[in-house]
Amino acid sequence: MEIDHPATLAEVTAAFVRYEAALVGNDIAVLDELFLAAPTTIRYGGGENLYGIEAIRGFRAARSPAGLARRLAGTVITSYGRDAAVASTLFYRDGAPGRVGRQMQTWVRTPDGWRVAAAHVSIIDEPA
Amino acid sequence: MEIDHPATLAEVTAAFVRYEAALVGNDIAVLDELFLAAPTTIRYGGGENLYGIEAIRGFRAARSPAGLARRLAGTVITSYGRDAAVASTLFYRDGAPGRVGRQMQTWVRTPDGWRVAAAHVSIIDEPA
Repeated sequence: MEIDHPATLAEVTAAFVRYEAALVGNDIAVLDELFLAAPTTIRYGGGENLYGIEAIRGFRAARSPAGLARRLAGTVITSYGRDAAVASTLFYRDGAPGRVGRQMQTWVRTPDGWRVAAAHVSIIDEPA
Repeated sequence: MEIDHPATLAEVTAAFVRYEAALVGNDIAVLDELFLAAPTTIRYGGGENLYGIEAIRGFRAARSPAGLARRLAGTVITSYGRDAAVASTLFYRDGAPGRVGRQMQTWVRTPDGWRVAAAHVSIIDEPA
């Protein structure tokens, strides 16, 4: 299993960048597109545990579009073979000083492009 | 990309079960074995952000062995192709009523067996 095959990594990185832009812009259509449309897709969010694409889409549609801007740090994207990758990043928001967010996504290749099959977002106090 | 190929899913499930037993038993040798020995391996924990296998092993060695018992719920393991899988589970501890833990792991196949390439653990108030 090749780690960080260059073309694969470039594809996933482009998908990650597109997702991030959609997130801070609250572009729900793109967010929905980029999550794998399957009952097995899971998103553990900051305050909710969402099982299945329908639960995830329902959450997106109901989310407030305010305060989404954030700064990323410690972003690492690593591909495993040609069809899977993990994107991990920390994030900070002006409205939450002293706190650090962590976002981890597993991306998989599909005939329609790369999709997030699982994601976990949490926010903790900045470690000392 | 085949989702939940039976033999693949069975292999990953066995690895997940082995990991869980090692976690609650604080079997550090097995925990170290089952995380991919690479600088790209990441573990976002309940209160720490660990980049690279050395940081992860250092954390394991220093962790208290007390209060590790937990009950799992909502466990979903899904394989994507033959070489990658995601294991997601909620967990509860007697010492933390009203709180729910979330653990998500990305597993990859290596010549030595299945390994966790990325993991994210967080604990939140139980959603209403």
